[in-house]
Amino acid sequence: MNISDEESGILKPSLTRSLYPMANLDSVLAQIDANLDNSVERLFDFLRIQSISTDPAYQTHCVEAADWLTAQLADIGFEATREDTPGHPMVVAKGGEGDAHFLFYGHYDVQPVDPIELWTSDPFDPQQETTPQGVVIRARGAADDKGQLMTFVEACRAFVQVHGALPAKITLFFEGEEESGSPSLVPYMQQNKDRLKADLAMVCDTGMWDANTPSISTMLRGMSGGEVTITGPDRDLHSGMYGGPARNPIRVLTKILAELHDDDGRVTLPHFYDGVEPLPEEIAEQWKSLNHDGIGFLQEVGLSLPAGEQGYSVLEQIWARPTCDINGIDGGYTGEGFKTVLPSQAKAKVSFRLVGQQDPEAVEKHFMEFVNSRLPEDCTAEFKFKNGAGATVMPVDAPAFGKAQQALSQEWPNNAVFAGCGGSIPVVGHIKEILDMDSLLIGFGLDDDAIHSPNEKYNMASFHRGIRSWARVLDALA
Amino acid sequence: MNISDEESGILKPSLTRSLYPMANLDSVLAQIDANLDNSVERLFDFLRIQSISTDPAYQTHCVEAADWLTAQLADIGFEATREDTPGHPMVVAKGGEGDAHFLFYGHYDVQPVDPIELWTSDPFDPQQETTPQGVVIRARGAADDKGQLMTFVEACRAFVQVHGALPAKITLFFEGEEESGSPSLVPYMQQNKDRLKADLAMVCDTGMWDANTPSISTMLRGMSGGEVTITGPDRDLHSGMYGGPARNPIRVLTKILAELHDDDGRVTLPHFYDGVEPLPEEIAEQWKSLNHDGIGFLQEVGLSLPAGEQGYSVLEQIWARPTCDINGIDGGYTGEGFKTVLPSQAKAKVSFRLVGQQDPEAVEKHFMEFVNSRLPEDCTAEFKFKNGAGATVMPVDAPAFGKAQQALSQEWPNNAVFAGCGGSIPVVGHIKEILDMDSLLIGFGLDDDAIHSPNEKYNMASFHRGIRSWARVLDALA
Repeated sequence: MNISDEESGILKPSLTRSLYPMANLDSVLAQIDANLDNSVERLFDFLRIQSISTDPAYQTHCVEAADWLTAQLADIGFEATREDTPGHPMVVAKGGEGDAHFLFYGHYDVQPVDPIELWTSDPFDPQQETTPQGVVIRARGAADDKGQLMTFVEACRAFVQVHGALPAKITLFFEGEEESGSPSLVPYMQQNKDRLKADLAMVCDTGMWDANTPSISTMLRGMSGGEVTITGPDRDLHSGMYGGPARNPIRVLTKILAELHDDDGRVTLPHFYDGVEPLPEEIAEQWKSLNHDGIGFLQEVGLSLPAGEQGYSVLEQIWARPTCDINGIDGGYTGEGFKTVLPSQAKAKVSFRLVGQQDPEAVEKHFMEFVNSRLPEDCTAEFKFKNGAGATVMPVDAPAFGKAQQALSQEWPNNAVFAGCGGSIPVVGHIKEILDMDSLLIGFGLDDDAIHSPNEKYNMASFHRGIRSWARVLDALA
Repeated sequence: MNISDEESGILKPSLTRSLYPMANLDSVLAQIDANLDNSVERLFDFLRIQSISTDPAYQTHCVEAADWLTAQLADIGFEATREDTPGHPMVVAKGGEGDAHFLFYGHYDVQPVDPIELWTSDPFDPQQETTPQGVVIRARGAADDKGQLMTFVEACRAFVQVHGALPAKITLFFEGEEESGSPSLVPYMQQNKDRLKADLAMVCDTGMWDANTPSISTMLRGMSGGEVTITGPDRDLHSGMYGGPARNPIRVLTKILAELHDDDGRVTLPHFYDGVEPLPEEIAEQWKSLNHDGIGFLQEVGLSLPAGEQGYSVLEQIWARPTCDINGIDGGYTGEGFKTVLPSQAKAKVSFRLVGQQDPEAVEKHFMEFVNSRLPEDCTAEFKFKNGAGATVMPVDAPAFGKAQQALSQEWPNNAVFAGCGGSIPVVGHIKEILDMDSLLIGFGLDDDAIHSPNEKYNMASFHRGIRSWARVLDALA
């Protein structure tokens, strides 16, 4: 999982658990239970491969992981190939028959292990440990994403073992650069559209709402923004010589930035809320029933007062409301000590998290107008925007989402919830843009999995029930 | 001259030039005229010494300049000594008798000459050049401060040549570190209070209002200020995970800074204007009569609209009105590209130029209160103040100032003006604080002297009339 945009958390809808006829499924689930030790053994083999993608020293280990995965998939019966790229290889596998066609995405690369001295065991020598929360698998990649992707692979294996066939047409697609910016992903997807195209994507790289409550992430915020540089005088001035009459671009910038929000935390940019729909009543109700501790969430990082739009819960502020954030500001003398300079320029990096149908380009345009309309006549503003992306809103009313939610709810103690996500998951955007497919984001990670940190773990329950969950979902959607 | 706080410019009062009996003075002035060539020769000797104080490679040249000056003063008849410090030496000389006792301050060190390729002649091989504006002396230090300090020394020499005596008790005090921060100045002054104490200080390190109008700088703005750091969350956060509910200290900081000025350019800090008196009517009239081109002044640096307090001229905004300047701001990610961070901290350097009786410590206190009262409960602010100093307001009603103004007016085409100065001149503050003396700031520099730049020059008229001016001032005040 790309932690930079990860968001765990789900909401539990008030679904009645229905009894679902599943003679075939029952034997698959039984097979999964009976073969769990073998599944764990295979995962351990995978976890022993040091596939750190960001460090060139581990290049051969990444290839080894791709080869291992290719062999596993071939062993199950997939037509599997390692496909080399300018970076680490992709693995693509195809199998199964039927009307439904699913594309499963995962990544075999892992984060570096530093600081190694904080690990209680070798990160590449996986261990089963009994903890107060149950048995866990401890290793780098146990959760992110080797353990998670293997839940899907093992579910496929169980189907083949029991029925000699997969329940649907399935394409598996694994990359090895997710933890290092995925430089090869978009070019590869563009060049292999036809091979990757399916009806629905499935991704296992997210988390549960809590240990008993599975989640389907259905709303991911988009983003736009960039850098604005305001120029006043054509050189740096001395405040003794010019302080008073000379325009200070830091003062101009801070005044403009201060006007971006009103006292209720709303963004004042004209047309900013165009395309922002109120949260559907049932989703709002579901989220409310999660009893999310918003203040506790803030207290964990040293804060105590929600700073977003008044009238919305902390969860809504993160999952369902757009924001305007100043990510950086810079101007004048910022070193040690003091310099009485009136600088020529001041700049800020400003970004917007987007929801619903907000148009990233329209937001940029209105931001430029907002700044320019407030600019004194003897100042100029220059803008550099980064590539924006709209929010991802999955069609939760589509049958696949309802069926997946039901299937998950049958596996876990609590019903599955449709969750939001404050950030974006880049691959989901690429799947939508390049392949024109929605994604079913189902994952079994927990907040305490310590992904990207020392002592990463994956609960054995996540792994075991995760395999069973995918068996149920595939069965329900096939 | 320390350009960092230099301010040229003067105002011409509507003085009637009185006829003043000056038999003795006339012979001194005649002596000055007759010996001008010798005076220029001595100045050239002085200019040939490469006394760059900031570069250790020129250490021996600085000592050479101090020795040269000591010898010159001894030659005139002063009891002169080179006094070593941890840095470059001081030169102190004493001479003359009488009730009146003046302390003259100057500096023998000069700025580096880079970029040397832009000089039209060797900076340490002084030249007389005829230009459309008259004859100029071109060399590093020609104006700042060797040429200027020599106007006083040569005036003393002329008195001694004509009368065999100085017109008053005179102490000369030269330092060699003015262009490199004067690290030895304050300790030396504190340890030699008794030797340096006189009735009035005279400093020749400032400029004229224009080539025909001499100036006495009588109002220098003071300064206070420091750095404020605002802390929100206890670590940097990701805007996908926290954007919305998490407090962004950059947003808090920009909002507070934006409130420091109202729409009329006035500083909103409570009690800020305590101690700011309206400009005396006659000074205001004099400044008005200077017909200062405020817009032209701003246009030279790429601006066009005065940004200070409405209702005041540009000259008043610089010389007579206090300011609040943001000299630096820093927070979040400021490098190339983009990072969607919500930083833990944001900071700004804020300074205040002070006038009249404004109290630097009170301003700091009110600034702290201003920030703290606007701080959300889950943020903290930390302050680091630098040493503040109040404004310097010379007693223009004191007889010495009126007499000096009259004396200068007799020498130059236009009457002398009492000028303001937007910055402070540190030595003037030290003379006031350590020696409890006012300073008569008279200088003959012009805006186009290019001090600190390639091709520095000093007008021959500045040098010649400068010597005559000091003769007149000494005669008038003795």
